[in-house]
Amino acid sequence: MTVGIGLAGLGRMGRVHARSLRGGCTEAHLACVYDADPAAAEFGVPWAASFAELLDRCDAVAIATPTAAHAELTVQAAESGKPVFCEKPLSLVRESAVAAVEACAAAGVALQVGFHRRFDPDWVAAAARIHAGELGQVQLFRTSLRDMDPPDPAFLAGSGGFFADMTVHDLDAARWLCGEVASVTAHGAAIDPAFAEYDDIDTAVVVLRFVSGALGVIDNSRSARYGYECSTEVMGTLATARIDAPHPRGLEWRSRGGAVRGFARDFEERFPFAYVAELDAFARCVRDGTPPRVTGHDALVASDLAAAATESWRTGRTVSLEVPA
Amino acid sequence: MTVGIGLAGLGRMGRVHARSLRGGCTEAHLACVYDADPAAAEFGVPWAASFAELLDRCDAVAIATPTAAHAELTVQAAESGKPVFCEKPLSLVRESAVAAVEACAAAGVALQVGFHRRFDPDWVAAAARIHAGELGQVQLFRTSLRDMDPPDPAFLAGSGGFFADMTVHDLDAARWLCGEVASVTAHGAAIDPAFAEYDDIDTAVVVLRFVSGALGVIDNSRSARYGYECSTEVMGTLATARIDAPHPRGLEWRSRGGAVRGFARDFEERFPFAYVAELDAFARCVRDGTPPRVTGHDALVASDLAAAATESWRTGRTVSLEVPA
Amino acid sequence: MTVGIGLAGLGRMGRVHARSLRGGCTEAHLACVYDADPAAAEFGVPWAASFAELLDRCDAVAIATPTAAHAELTVQAAESGKPVFCEKPLSLVRESAVAAVEACAAAGVALQVGFHRRFDPDWVAAAARIHAGELGQVQLFRTSLRDMDPPDPAFLAGSGGFFADMTVHDLDAARWLCGEVASVTAHGAAIDPAFAEYDDIDTAVVVLRFVSGALGVIDNSRSARYGYECSTEVMGTLATARIDAPHPRGLEWRSRGGAVRGFARDFEERFPFAYVAELDAFARCVRDGTPPRVTGHDALVASDLAAAATESWRTGRTVSLEVPA
Amino acid sequence: MTVGIGLAGLGRMGRVHARSLRGGCTEAHLACVYDADPAAAEFGVPWAASFAELLDRCDAVAIATPTAAHAELTVQAAESGKPVFCEKPLSLVRESAVAAVEACAAAGVALQVGFHRRFDPDWVAAAARIHAGELGQVQLFRTSLRDMDPPDPAFLAGSGGFFADMTVHDLDAARWLCGEVASVTAHGAAIDPAFAEYDDIDTAVVVLRFVSGALGVIDNSRSARYGYECSTEVMGTLATARIDAPHPRGLEWRSRGGAVRGFARDFEERFPFAYVAELDAFARCVRDGTPPRVTGHDALVASDLAAAATESWRTGRTVSLEVPA
Repeated sequence: MTVGIGLAGLGRMGRVHARSLRGGCTEAHLACVYDADPAAAEFGVPWAASFAELLDRCDAVAIATPTAAHAELTVQAAESGKPVFCEKPLSLVRESAVAAVEACAAAGVALQVGFHRRFDPDWVAAAARIHAGELGQVQLFRTSLRDMDPPDPAFLAGSGGFFADMTVHDLDAARWLCGEVASVTAHGAAIDPAFAEYDDIDTAVVVLRFVSGALGVIDNSRSARYGYECSTEVMGTLATARIDAPHPRGLEWRSRGGAVRGFARDFEERFPFAYVAELDAFARCVRDGTPPRVTGHDALVASDLAAAATESWRTGRTVSLEVPA
Repeated sequence: MTVGIGLAGLGRMGRVHARSLRGGCTEAHLACVYDADPAAAEFGVPWAASFAELLDRCDAVAIATPTAAHAELTVQAAESGKPVFCEKPLSLVRESAVAAVEACAAAGVALQVGFHRRFDPDWVAAAARIHAGELGQVQLFRTSLRDMDPPDPAFLAGSGGFFADMTVHDLDAARWLCGEVASVTAHGAAIDPAFAEYDDIDTAVVVLRFVSGALGVIDNSRSARYGYECSTEVMGTLATARIDAPHPRGLEWRSRGGAVRGFARDFEERFPFAYVAELDAFARCVRDGTPPRVTGHDALVASDLAAAATESWRTGRTVSLEVPA
Repeated sequence: MTVGIGLAGLGRMGRVHARSLRGGCTEAHLACVYDADPAAAEFGVPWAASFAELLDRCDAVAIATPTAAHAELTVQAAESGKPVFCEKPLSLVRESAVAAVEACAAAGVALQVGFHRRFDPDWVAAAARIHAGELGQVQLFRTSLRDMDPPDPAFLAGSGGFFADMTVHDLDAARWLCGEVASVTAHGAAIDPAFAEYDDIDTAVVVLRFVSGALGVIDNSRSARYGYECSTEVMGTLATARIDAPHPRGLEWRSRGGAVRGFARDFEERFPFAYVAELDAFARCVRDGTPPRVTGHDALVASDLAAAATESWRTGRTVSLEVPA
Repeated sequence: MTVGIGLAGLGRMGRVHARSLRGGCTEAHLACVYDADPAAAEFGVPWAASFAELLDRCDAVAIATPTAAHAELTVQAAESGKPVFCEKPLSLVRESAVAAVEACAAAGVALQVGFHRRFDPDWVAAAARIHAGELGQVQLFRTSLRDMDPPDPAFLAGSGGFFADMTVHDLDAARWLCGEVASVTAHGAAIDPAFAEYDDIDTAVVVLRFVSGALGVIDNSRSARYGYECSTEVMGTLATARIDAPHPRGLEWRSRGGAVRGFARDFEERFPFAYVAELDAFARCVRDGTPPRVTGHDALVASDLAAAATESWRTGRTVSLEVPA
């Protein structure tokens, strides 16, 4: 009765989705897994020998493979008529991402991209009130996304760079909450020189100018050290929404040294509901034929903004976006 | 592969457990339901025509029927060799509760009682550090349990009274965190006179003296109005553990009137993990044959403490408990 | 133009008042000091050789000597026609306290007693809203007063015991916020056996029943260890006021171990405004001839409640108060 | 015995200082005031008919007149040998500011400029730990300064513009906490078109690149609406210092709508200690002949940074600063 999801890829995000589908989701279940590594067998569901077999054994697919395969598998799924949930980014190559979006549109299958914040209860509640006008006119958008510890440099090489890998989440949130972005100015630094060796950075500040005239600012870091942080503030002329709750647990330990509360270590601990909710929402789209809340178009625009940020960082210039009339 | 739970009763707590078993639990699944009301069919699992049939179709049972049937169904399950998760209280009649505990012991089946706080991550973390000695000697235990709005008086009639229905959760938490209780002094008030008509109260303060010499204090209310509250503090000679996080969501709405954060409305919103975790823990006991973290004995002692509180409230005297050597 | 205060006693509280009068108060200034110890000279104001001389050189007196002299000096000041601010308690002997109150009444001079919480902006704001009816009917009063570290045992001997020395502040706050108290039940423990040697305790829980029917609970400790705590909650049928802000400073230090915020060490750090405000308020009474916000009568009733708590602790019985019609 | 301050100017900041000097400061007192408006008489201290007379009647001066007179009065005071506390900015004209700084240096009198955050206990504590190396290498500086409601446009005309009037405080804090700034990129918006009419803005985001390689970001607004905000975060490789405590009072009002805590309305409510502490610190410099913690040089550099921000905003380009070797 619930939607059977075929899961491709059992890396970190694949395992997050597997857990959601096996405990958490009420609208979807894990129907089958496909991964080059036979350890996939541990999940106690059928193991497909190929992506084609996976498509045969599910109602819809969730793609969490390495990025390089995202677009191709999305196209393949679309051609089989299966709705697609795909981790971001669709592709590091714009043409491939466009092709994937177009394939889904041509086949008439839903395509949802993994911007989980769109499904977290805090952001959902803020968005609902902002979109209802309770905040008035947006004046300033501010958000911080910071990892606790930097990833392995080997991962970085295939990530598409800092802005495509990390900032893209904030860029999507910015558009969602405050509307289209007119220009991007990005500043980066490699506090840890290891990042410079990969021609990459570990710290960035990105300034946005929205079409509405409002300003936005994003700060990102690969190594906040104290924990994982994802906090957002939207300041309007009537009110300000602020999500700034980095403590996943309510226990405070008090001693002579002060009151201590722990931080979330990573996105899984910070977003206990969002990863479940995004798959349940996807399952409802599959079941009811309704469009997803975050689409292939959203993914393309977020990627374009990340590319603009990259260009701005490299050139030291503000990059304007063409905003469709 | 996961443990198949037969769920008896689909009232409020039954529905909480059904949701956990259908989305949340990773060690247990909903195998079958039994309820006098055929609406049970909505859960998409087999519907048993009798409790006996339920027992046949599951690995273990979760009993969430009205209280009057708890003990008898527990005995019946034990005699069928099925492990039992039973909502509190086992019975309003001490002898029946004892009989249920003894039936499970005789049959060698696990009996776990629904004190969910024992499975909430905050309380679990506090207990672990307290039991490891990090807090030193306990000096003071303080806890608040408050409902947002009072229940329907019709419910009250069968609840066993304020202390058995409400305070019992705090009494169990007190023993778990601070050891056995030597005496109880209870004070009650019916702020809303409707409660006095049922010879009951809606507000209470209960003072505990632990065998260790420490003091404890519980405050309870049926109608905090602002929201549901469950907060606990244990003050030791080295440190103090404090769990006081009534806001389930991290969104703060700022305007001229101040910063506003919402409260949990009820225990479901306050304890997003505990109800899932208690059933997963029960499933592990069933699978591995290990004893539950909260036993029938714990349930009996908590009920005895609630009875002592009731007696103290009625007599205006401190009631001492016999503590086994 | 501001009121010249003669300060008697330069122990801990005397020094707090001296600082307020020399930097903080805008309605009062330090006119003269009197203390057996000539170190008083450090304050850069005239030093009186006797209390009589002090009276000659000021508009009003603040008495912060050891308790034993409070009542006698109050009488002496009243007889000289000087308004009196006196640290609590007026006396450990009820008759002396009554005599002091009566002397001030007979002389027509203002007598204000040092319950500083009545002048702290948080409590003042809460009281104003409670008294205006915004909270509805009071259901529950709860307060914690805890020192960081225990005082020297030598101090204890002259303190009048735990309830007279410590709980009395909470008893006054209870009456102020919630009205008269009908009965008191007190429980105490000497977690540190050194207190038992003085026939005293270091930890207490006191339950109040207000004339209104509401319940109240106070917890007190000589050694919270993590810091000084003074937190109060009043739960009403319409709203709940909660003052629970133990961190005097806004700096949070974040690292891998969590977010750390420091506690107030003592009442001076916890109440940066109250000690100044109480003397400014007293000065306004002196200048304008208006009655003080906290009177000798308030002090007597608070002392009676502390005596009732002491009796309850010793007898194990609830002690009822005679409440004037 | 305390330092007698002659106060010039009784506008908003002048009145803040007058209050500090009459109640708050322990090292300084208000000796005399000078203001074109005879209402100055209300402060109960001698009123000087001219700035020259003020200089005669004080140990040191505090200048809080309209900006246009700051530099000239500073020079006049220096030539009279009187130490100067001057509100920021020294002048809107760089040459005049330099002349004022040089006059003080030539006369050998202390010059302290009114960057109050340098004296707030939270920032002082953070700075001490950062400068001691506890935070490791600074990675990111982030700060928000926002007024609740915009000032009167008439004020704006003489303010030197947004960056000189508002951002300058954050620029000084940035240098103090993280070292010299290498470049500035500023973005501005006039959300309220009234600001555009004055060729000014009401919202800004300024990105800093420190000489150390770290990034910094400042957001500023004339109209946060919910309250006054001044929050700062410094993220290092070992720890992160965060000052984000916009609630001046500890009272939380709980009702069905959620928990409400009030914001500070303005800088006076947000900084109850800093304005007193900066004058006490100045008085100690006067008395002991030690250099001030924030100097004329600091004021010049902060003004240069504000000018760079203004230029960056106007040109859309990053502006580099010459940093002395």
